[in-house]
Amino acid sequence: MAHIEVEENVPGIRSLVMFRPETGKPLYELAQVLLRGESPLTEAERELIAAYVSKRNDTMFCTMSHAATSRELYGSEKNIVDDVLNDVQQSEISDKMKALLNIAGKVQILGKEVLPEDIEAARKQGADDREIHDTVLIAATFSMYNRYVDGLASFTPTDPEEYIEMGKRMAEKGYVTPK
Amino acid sequence: MAHIEVEENVPGIRSLVMFRPETGKPLYELAQVLLRGESPLTEAERELIAAYVSKRNDTMFCTMSHAATSRELYGSEKNIVDDVLNDVQQSEISDKMKALLNIAGKVQILGKEVLPEDIEAARKQGADDREIHDTVLIAATFSMYNRYVDGLASFTPTDPEEYIEMGKRMAEKGYVTPK
Repeated sequence: MAHIEVEENVPGIRSLVMFRPETGKPLYELAQVLLRGESPLTEAERELIAAYVSKRNDTMFCTMSHAATSRELYGSEKNIVDDVLNDVQQSEISDKMKALLNIAGKVQILGKEVLPEDIEAARKQGADDREIHDTVLIAATFSMYNRYVDGLASFTPTDPEEYIEMGKRMAEKGYVTPK
Repeated sequence: MAHIEVEENVPGIRSLVMFRPETGKPLYELAQVLLRGESPLTEAERELIAAYVSKRNDTMFCTMSHAATSRELYGSEKNIVDDVLNDVQQSEISDKMKALLNIAGKVQILGKEVLPEDIEAARKQGADDREIHDTVLIAATFSMYNRYVDGLASFTPTDPEEYIEMGKRMAEKGYVTPK
């Protein structure tokens, strides 16, 4: 049960956004522009960074829902998502994405963990300022969403089927404030 | 020097928001509604939670600027800010705020650190759902801002005078997107 009185059976952040729509609005707008707006990173890659950080923060709801969304967006290459979540280095993702995921992992620990050599390594693989910026902000943003969802113990569905549906909806419609 | 090419000498998050205004807009709107919108917590208390979490995340820019803002808002009681930042338990802040700061400190570590007994302790001191919600979201939100600012190594002024001015501006005008 959640730590505060929210709508029952509404999963994850949705119940919290319904509890306090005034803060929910910018929270959803941020997700929409960051994960669906213009970026040199594909939507599938951005959702993968979100799932990767959420897994490191041990937030099951965000991990499952964003992994499902990323799989949906990767389409026939969807296996890459689980490969990365299991072991980035052993996965067949590009060296640039490996370097960006390394930065995301450092941000997940703490901002100051990101060292000039981490940035340099990403640049060597062709990452530009915008890719580095978006990676850091996605990792920072999910360090927030994860804490919001778990800090208030919001409802986390356990049926994998539910996440497949969620992933389809999030891939297709993006982040629309719940009514 | 920042990890990406941003406007020089523009401090903290401002330079990042100028680099990417599309994400800057919801980031500032979130701070404005959360720290200045309607809440059972005073603006001074909310800024104090922000400074407290930022200090725990070792983000000097956010700690100094939000501590300065909280001092400004506490007015004649401004010593409470440094007392809390030095040692919550020894400070003369209310037992309710102590219980809420305990929750904020748990969120700073990780969402799942918040246990039912932490919530119960806050309720015993009279905290309601909205106070608990706002505390968790402020702590989660600053876990993001702190990582964004430090993860990209944005410019951190070292002159304390500059933060006093910043605090006055933030107390008076709130969070207005930089042009």
